[in-house]
Amino acid sequence: MHDATPQWRVDLDAQLSLHAHEPVSRFVQVATIRRDGRPANRTMTFRLFLSGHRLLFTADAHTEKIAELEKCPWAEICWYFPEARWQARILGTMHVAHSEDEELEQARRLTWHERTEESRQSFTWPRAGEPLSPLPAFRHPTPMRPPENFSLLVLTPDRVETLDLSCHPHVRELHTCQNGDWTSGRINP
Amino acid sequence: MHDATPQWRVDLDAQLSLHAHEPVSRFVQVATIRRDGRPANRTMTFRLFLSGHRLLFTADAHTEKIAELEKCPWAEICWYFPEARWQARILGTMHVAHSEDEELEQARRLTWHERTEESRQSFTWPRAGEPLSPLPAFRHPTPMRPPENFSLLVLTPDRVETLDLSCHPHVRELHTCQNGDWTSGRINP
Repeated sequence: MHDATPQWRVDLDAQLSLHAHEPVSRFVQVATIRRDGRPANRTMTFRLFLSGHRLLFTADAHTEKIAELEKCPWAEICWYFPEARWQARILGTMHVAHSEDEELEQARRLTWHERTEESRQSFTWPRAGEPLSPLPAFRHPTPMRPPENFSLLVLTPDRVETLDLSCHPHVRELHTCQNGDWTSGRINP
Repeated sequence: MHDATPQWRVDLDAQLSLHAHEPVSRFVQVATIRRDGRPANRTMTFRLFLSGHRLLFTADAHTEKIAELEKCPWAEICWYFPEARWQARILGTMHVAHSEDEELEQARRLTWHERTEESRQSFTWPRAGEPLSPLPAFRHPTPMRPPENFSLLVLTPDRVETLDLSCHPHVRELHTCQNGDWTSGRINP
């Protein structure tokens, strides 16, 4: 069963292709644990799926979320498709990719290339979250290649809960992973 | 300054009235801490503001999020308005309202009244998250009044971070509360 595509991935791929024309369908909310133990939550853009159903995101290495994930690697993504009334909650560990194989090198090139000029330039900005720097500090030229602080963040999913609110009663499924094998079952909505 | 409306509330109210015709603009993602210490994240519907800039949500008392909040009351809401490219992250403590003053009693009546028939009926369903019950268990008649397990969840905000991605450079503001007084300042985006 190791090679079978888990049901949540089949369902999520269907939602993504249904909403392929809407960039907002790739925006998800990512919950992490702050360094003081309180929860944090922010919107991030899902980039692509890597092998093993891992999810790729990118981030500035200097941001607080990277420090949070270094202390506690657990994250839960909430992915809601309002028209379909379909939600996926994806719990797993999220790590910065430090060594890169061919798949990650390719992902780095692709995710840098597909960004807007503005998004690329933002990687030259002063450290996020600190007191506001003077405006000229935000006017560096856009780098041609991914700078040092352009990080790939990889989420390895462990537990996925899907909820379809378009049915009555709602359909809720729990998908769990053990040694790479996914099992799925319906639970009470 | 105790009575001055904090800037984040002014900005959020402006977004809400701009998008008043879209129910999806009241959907937010709520991050909490699971009982095992890992993060949780799910979509909830913002109902209304109470006095003191507290945010009201409703939930079934039997759901896992209530058990999570009883163990750790901290929650962070992520509220993203895609068209405006504007985000608010609202960190605070979230509690079930156990005793009710006039304001909360009114909120209970209103939030029960404005629900769909389907949503009201869902409060009679078997305990969420447990193995799937047989279908007839989901066919109870809709209660006329709010049942015991219809809970008001109140978020008291403590720290709000707003991010406006429509400007260049982006505008990020940190708003913090001490003894009911809010102070705001720009930080690096």
